[in-house]
Amino acid sequence: MESTMRFCPIGTIRTGFALPQGTPVQGAYAGGATGTVELLPEFVPGLKDLAGFDRIWLLYWLDRTAPPQLEVVPYLDSKPHGVFATRSPCRPNAIGMSVVRLMGVEGATLWVADVDMLDGTPLLDIKPYVPAFDVFAVERVGWCEGITKHTCKTADNRFAPVSPTTG
Amino acid sequence: MESTMRFCPIGTIRTGFALPQGTPVQGAYAGGATGTVELLPEFVPGLKDLAGFDRIWLLYWLDRTAPPQLEVVPYLDSKPHGVFATRSPCRPNAIGMSVVRLMGVEGATLWVADVDMLDGTPLLDIKPYVPAFDVFAVERVGWCEGITKHTCKTADNRFAPVSPTTG
Repeated sequence: MESTMRFCPIGTIRTGFALPQGTPVQGAYAGGATGTVELLPEFVPGLKDLAGFDRIWLLYWLDRTAPPQLEVVPYLDSKPHGVFATRSPCRPNAIGMSVVRLMGVEGATLWVADVDMLDGTPLLDIKPYVPAFDVFAVERVGWCEGITKHTCKTADNRFAPVSPTTG
Repeated sequence: MESTMRFCPIGTIRTGFALPQGTPVQGAYAGGATGTVELLPEFVPGLKDLAGFDRIWLLYWLDRTAPPQLEVVPYLDSKPHGVFATRSPCRPNAIGMSVVRLMGVEGATLWVADVDMLDGTPLLDIKPYVPAFDVFAVERVGWCEGITKHTCKTADNRFAPVSPTTG
């Protein structure tokens, strides 16, 4: 097994969220918040035909999170769970993934909505959201029972690397 | 922007698929094919409460793919598309993601079904599949129009690093 895998940012996600506090904890809770994806110019040919999709996956590096924790109290519960049973950012490999709405593509810029990333987040990958691949009916969702698209919650500083100074 | 992000495998995905040829191109087309996820022992506490979920996301390193191509003819079409408009493996950052069915958790082993990875694939992350976060109604799916859960297709060697010898 390779001991380290090296990945490089292919662009940057720009949003209105500078700090965890107040950032939606999921794209579903972003209330349509808009942002852009600024792709590095050399990757622009990879966007061909992307504009035909209503929604896309963004994979990105959670670059401003605390060191990994194996048990966490997630934003949406008051009890600890294994980090792999949550979507919390402080994971062994801090990779985030979100479904965003694709509003338009213009050169190296994607105009997106339903963003839940911090401004300046390094982009790892873009994939089309395809219901045949991504939508499954499930009955058991563990501790997430009762969580709906209307749960709406913003983050606090529990997973931030350092508490930002205030005042 | 950081120039390189280093991620480490947290385990290995074991499946019955040794070569791309014959491997399902999506978990949705795996016909229930089973496998295991062998987590490294130090990460086992992170599995707490995962067993409550019917389905989980696996993120993994597509470690046996050709160098990145920005335009590809995907398995499910005969025309070229930008790689970011496809789920093809030869991406700038070769990260795969699949929804698998979680059959059981036993120590460091997850028993899973609907696997579409090559045997020995390095695991990057596990996340719960939560409809509130992951299920969206979309109207436009670009060139994937007409692709359903019944499309069923297995891979060939088009994205393999070298053609395996035969006979």
